[in-house]
Amino acid sequence: MSQEAPPVKDVPAEQAAREEALVRQVLAAFDGTPSPRLRQLVQALAGHLHAFVRETRLTTQEWEAAIGFLTACGHITDDRRQEFILLSDVLGLSMQTIAVNNEARGEATEATVLGPFFVEGAPEIPIGGDMSGGAAGEPCWVEGVVRDTAGEPVPHARIEVWEADADGSYDVQYGDDRIAGRARLHSDDQGRFAFWGVTPTPYPIPSDGPVGDLLRATGRSPMRASHLHFMVSAEGLRTLVTHIFVRGCAYLERDSVFGVKESLIRDFARQEAGTPAPGGREIAGPWTRVRFDIVLASGEEAEDTGATG
Amino acid sequence: MSQEAPPVKDVPAEQAAREEALVRQVLAAFDGTPSPRLRQLVQALAGHLHAFVRETRLTTQEWEAAIGFLTACGHITDDRRQEFILLSDVLGLSMQTIAVNNEARGEATEATVLGPFFVEGAPEIPIGGDMSGGAAGEPCWVEGVVRDTAGEPVPHARIEVWEADADGSYDVQYGDDRIAGRARLHSDDQGRFAFWGVTPTPYPIPSDGPVGDLLRATGRSPMRASHLHFMVSAEGLRTLVTHIFVRGCAYLERDSVFGVKESLIRDFARQEAGTPAPGGREIAGPWTRVRFDIVLASGEEAEDTGATG
Repeated sequence: MSQEAPPVKDVPAEQAAREEALVRQVLAAFDGTPSPRLRQLVQALAGHLHAFVRETRLTTQEWEAAIGFLTACGHITDDRRQEFILLSDVLGLSMQTIAVNNEARGEATEATVLGPFFVEGAPEIPIGGDMSGGAAGEPCWVEGVVRDTAGEPVPHARIEVWEADADGSYDVQYGDDRIAGRARLHSDDQGRFAFWGVTPTPYPIPSDGPVGDLLRATGRSPMRASHLHFMVSAEGLRTLVTHIFVRGCAYLERDSVFGVKESLIRDFARQEAGTPAPGGREIAGPWTRVRFDIVLASGEEAEDTGATG
Repeated sequence: MSQEAPPVKDVPAEQAAREEALVRQVLAAFDGTPSPRLRQLVQALAGHLHAFVRETRLTTQEWEAAIGFLTACGHITDDRRQEFILLSDVLGLSMQTIAVNNEARGEATEATVLGPFFVEGAPEIPIGGDMSGGAAGEPCWVEGVVRDTAGEPVPHARIEVWEADADGSYDVQYGDDRIAGRARLHSDDQGRFAFWGVTPTPYPIPSDGPVGDLLRATGRSPMRASHLHFMVSAEGLRTLVTHIFVRGCAYLERDSVFGVKESLIRDFARQEAGTPAPGGREIAGPWTRVRFDIVLASGEEAEDTGATG
């Protein structure tokens, strides 16, 4: 990339006409798309990408760099590493998609990004169980009630929770097959839920790949604000994909994936060593507890899971 | 993808404000980019992609499909298969980049797409030599002169030529290490060049991957109009990446990569069996001959090769 930003050239009329004719030709090539929705999507995408190339006067070297960047994203991506989701995340596109698909509805809990670390088929734990699976970290007791926007408890809601350990790693990053820091539980007949996890800590998104290179080249931090992931679903209600964030975390203002919403910040109350813990759990050191009451909007169950199965 | 195109929703003011605030937050996150040019590029790209998501009200399922599509492109791409270039090609973005970087200059020969099959280090052949390397096809004699826009011959210009065989395959698609249908030669001290190749025939771009799926889903043909690739460079002149196309080819109007330009269509004159051939070559059957005089614009040698080496 050149270090100087050349002013966008004034494009001669003959040249501009040639470029515009090409755009029309490309859009017309998709007129025969059988699915009206697919036609709308591909024509809108092509239109915006052509505008990007023309407005920036993209050089061939920059185009080559883009091809190389996408290729590198593809080659580092596997079953456990999803660089394209990271790219979507750091460009704010994941968050924008979440925003578009989760319009504000009454008191419904706000949604945020799924992130690349959700895994289907996490182990079921009972209410009050431990989802840490041995993940390193300070114990954290999480409890709350799932309700609908009418304030009615939602019994037997399916609650998927996942988080990084105290070193900032998710189990899928351990390089072995351990399952830790993720579980599924269900709310009880009064919508109540509770579980043990670990107190969330800030961590960098994987930055050893092309997305990390992009963050460095643009002077951005890879750090995510401390958070615990939730995906909550119940029949007839809009599935909620969200996090809770730790009040006081230094990265709330510059979360690398733009996931923080004020309404999702919670007090993780510190408990001194020796404070009696729920379920009579014996804890040597300090621990934390947090309350997260969840409100599910009405809507289609499957529509907005964001799950990348 | 849904089969129905829902009208783009009217977005409530509160929701629109939330989406716009996110766009501002994302663009601001790149304000610290050290390279002004990189900042311009990433902010322009992010702005267009956010507009795409908002205008189309992209669903989470569609976002997932896009992630899956890019992942599949990455996984099929290797040293010999470049799905991201194909994607850029079928969206007309490669051609738009070529257009932006090759503004009309006097009589300069028009440029077109590089395509994914250029390979560095093709074997050198003498003027009048055979670049087919045994590739199947009807012999084709190609000759012309390289000049600059002042009409002066360009001696010793480097001319890279490559093409598919009669079955529509480039050597890199053979699955072995044969080199066929590609060579490098140099114009003589009067700018003249000539070589034997094979008469170009239409062929589909690789359509067994995600880009092929996209073409099928959008009702488009994968066929490329019959063509022969050139990359011509000389000191102090703008490197030309182009093709010549065969007049009368059925695909001139619907080339899958939007590469055809009227000025690049040539008559490939059919010669009956027995017609004496240049260099006294013995040819059992019919053959063709074509003339392609090349005009190089002045400009930086390296700037516009489009080579994806």
